Amino acid sequence: MTDEPTRRPVGRRGLLTGAALTAGGALAGAAALTAARHDDQGVRGAEAVPVAQVGSAVEPFHGPRQAGVATEAQAHAAFVAFDLKPGVDRAGLGRMLRLLSDDAARLTQGRPALADTEPELGLLPARLTVTFGFGPGLYRAAGVDDRRPPSVADLPPLRIDRLQPRWSGGDLLLQICADDPLTVAHAQRVLIKDSRPFAAVRWVQQGFRRAAGAEPGRTQRNLFGQLDGTANPQPGSPLETAVWVPDGPAWLRDSSTLVVRRISMNLETWDLLGRADRELAVGRRLGTGAPLTGSAEHDEPDFAALGPDGLTVIPDFSHLTRAHVTDDRLRILRRAYNYDGVPAADGTADSGLIFAAYQADITRQFLPIQRRLAERDLLNEWTTPIGSAVFAVPPGCPEGGWVGQQLLG
Amino acid sequence: MTDEPTRRPVGRRGLLTGAALTAGGALAGAAALTAARHDDQGVRGAEAVPVAQVGSAVEPFHGPRQAGVATEAQAHAAFVAFDLKPGVDRAGLGRMLRLLSDDAARLTQGRPALADTEPELGLLPARLTVTFGFGPGLYRAAGVDDRRPPSVADLPPLRIDRLQPRWSGGDLLLQICADDPLTVAHAQRVLIKDSRPFAAVRWVQQGFRRAAGAEPGRTQRNLFGQLDGTANPQPGSPLETAVWVPDGPAWLRDSSTLVVRRISMNLETWDLLGRADRELAVGRRLGTGAPLTGSAEHDEPDFAALGPDGLTVIPDFSHLTRAHVTDDRLRILRRAYNYDGVPAADGTADSGLIFAAYQADITRQFLPIQRRLAERDLLNEWTTPIGSAVFAVPPGCPEGGWVGQQLLG
Ligand code: HEM
Ligand code: HEM
Repeated sequence: MTDEPTRRPVGRRGLLTGAALTAGGALAGAAALTAARHDDQGVRGAEAVPVAQVGSAVEPFHGPRQAGVATEAQAHAAFVAFDLKPGVDRAGLGRMLRLLSDDAARLTQGRPALADTEPELGLLPARLTVTFGFGPGLYRAAGVDDRRPPSVADLPPLRIDRLQPRWSGGDLLLQICADDPLTVAHAQRVLIKDSRPFAAVRWVQQGFRRAAGAEPGRTQRNLFGQLDGTANPQPGSPLETAVWVPDGPAWLRDSSTLVVRRISMNLETWDLLGRADRELAVGRRLGTGAPLTGSAEHDEPDFAALGPDGLTVIPDFSHLTRAHVTDDRLRILRRAYNYDGVPAADGTADSGLIFAAYQADITRQFLPIQRRLAERDLLNEWTTPIGSAVFAVPPGCPEGGWVGQQLLG
Repeated sequence: MTDEPTRRPVGRRGLLTGAALTAGGALAGAAALTAARHDDQGVRGAEAVPVAQVGSAVEPFHGPRQAGVATEAQAHAAFVAFDLKPGVDRAGLGRMLRLLSDDAARLTQGRPALADTEPELGLLPARLTVTFGFGPGLYRAAGVDDRRPPSVADLPPLRIDRLQPRWSGGDLLLQICADDPLTVAHAQRVLIKDSRPFAAVRWVQQGFRRAAGAEPGRTQRNLFGQLDGTANPQPGSPLETAVWVPDGPAWLRDSSTLVVRRISMNLETWDLLGRADRELAVGRRLGTGAPLTGSAEHDEPDFAALGPDGLTVIPDFSHLTRAHVTDDRLRILRRAYNYDGVPAADGTADSGLIFAAYQADITRQFLPIQRRLAERDLLNEWTTPIGSAVFAVPPGCPEGGWVGQQLLG
């Protein structure tokens, strides 16, 4: 409880106490009489609030690579996709990205954005990251389609897809992640407000994982109850190789690509299935996440091992078998979030995964896996892709720079 | 990483590897061949998973009073309202409430529900509470309308209301709160599934506050950036007096009542207002939450203090002045959650408060405050009630009992 450093005389009394009321909804009046005042005073006052660990933890924003990719996944995420407004060209994009980069640089470090109208909500970073993704349309709008990573293009149609436009596509993506849901909500608000002159919101997908501190060091579970993320490439060389573009021109080096798929998970039919069959469908145990041929989560699966019945212990069409990749250069980094919408009157859940996969090259890494899964994967019985979008993840930026500068600057 | 205590031979191989696929969507097959097996084995296997503090913290379920009222507010909440199906009478209600009480008793203690199809998701209580509320229709359905607390009835129409049926009313409410969003999602799923024979989902409202550990001991902030909850009755005698019915028949003693209002907060127009005017509208500082006549959050407001202009320092129509109550018997316990839906294409936010207020008597405590606010409250300019529902909060139950037993048993 601290006092505010500078107390100001309160003003505009007459209108607020009288006129606004008698005018019965005279917002126009109240707004007209008060220019928004985003002065330092309020912000300093707010910064005096003491914070604790989950709230004060910070992820770096500046650097050769963007945060929010290799960053240990935070508890909450909002994926916000934008359509550029007609006429927004390379110069306009530059202005937008400078602004949004500045917002992100501040908010991620626990400082309110420049024109932050709720500065008190900008003080708890809670490991906030804001990751920028560029859709194919952004390259076209900027007239730099020749610089677009060729794999950043709409995925070919897949027979399992039931894609809805409301969850698909987009010229620009902001992946906003933090361990605190209010921090995510505030960052989302600030970034959307500042993008208004340039872009319209195309879709927003909000997701969650386990709360910070709920299960430290454990693989998260999805709404099917499965450990989800076990076989992700580990920090160090496997992650390096899988996720980051190692060389090329400045707008490619240290870049990545992102596929966001909204995949509905049919809890109604999944719940009718017994445990053993669920474990067969994936090829791993529900309890420990161990492969059916092993006993601990990180045991190597043995796809050749035969059971007493002469069949492979891990079914050939299990999700594990079909998705499995051994070559580090071909792996993908899954950074999925659960979503849980409002159930229908009869209780049917609206649940699933915001499946977000990072890789150096979509065509070489993501697509072959996705194709194998679309062709044959026991899990398809209970999952349906209803949204799909692809983005380049440009390199990060140094202090004073902005995301996209190498491409557009 | 522990092994599962009993390893079972995996079965049903042929169908899962072949038939289900060739049948192209042969869920019926897969389901038919596998009766759901919710045996102890899977659950024991799952319980071996080690958990940490945020996840393992437990709130009691059994006791004379329900949890989730005086309980320090958890980070996440789902308010789930049901309509009873035609024909569900006192006996049916008894069966439903026995079942849901058993689910809640287990899940809140970190044990899966009896027929839990995702038992691994039932192991992290994360301070889970499930609070039962009885709407007016429940008393009618059970033929016990004479036992309904008289104040549990639709609120009289208020001129500020723009109520939508989709956020209003309901025969039964479950307020599900926990510090982990996956724990809330799972509990919601289990409770909705088990209520299916008896009731349809009327509405679900999902909300959040600061993450556990983000700002320990601090009053939460809402999406206007205000400290929200400062003047709540404190634990001990003020809370006792305000919230709980002290005597009467068994179904009233240690009961409470709950008003849930969905109040949309117009961030667009609020953001046009300067800081000083926002502070005048509420009567408190944004930074510290101090009343305009004080310097620390919990300073007593001085409603008579005059400024140099001869007007009261705290405006007479400020939210603080209009809502203020000094008599402990007339106060309410606000346990609000923020909501933040998907913004419109132009970026207009869908934000607000799931305003949940507990009090011994709605008519005597909540209504006078709400009437004063509806009549004159500067904040009305930027807030609109779009949902409203009222519930009795029956007493708790001892081990082996169920919520509602005193009323219906
Ligand atoms: C709702 C849909 C999905 C669910 C519920 C799901 C679930 C799982 C589970 C439980 C595992 C095993 C544990 C782990 O390693 O994480 C897994 C592994 C994996 N999944 Fe998925 N998955 C889904 C969609 C996808 C999609 C769309 C892709 C890519 C196109 C994919 C690629 C992978 C990969 C690469 C692995 C690791 C395989 C290995 O190398 O061992 N998954 N998934
Ligand atoms: C979106 C709508 C609302 C917002 C944003 C809001 C915000 C606030 C804020 C910032 C305070 C001061 C700090 C505090 O004590 O918590 C406050 C106090 C209070 N509010 Fe609200 N409020 C809203 C709706 C309501 C409603 C509907 C009621 C009851 C009908 C209510 C009753 C109260 C009470 C009783 C106090 C404490 C007053 C005192 O005794 O000092 N509020 N509210």
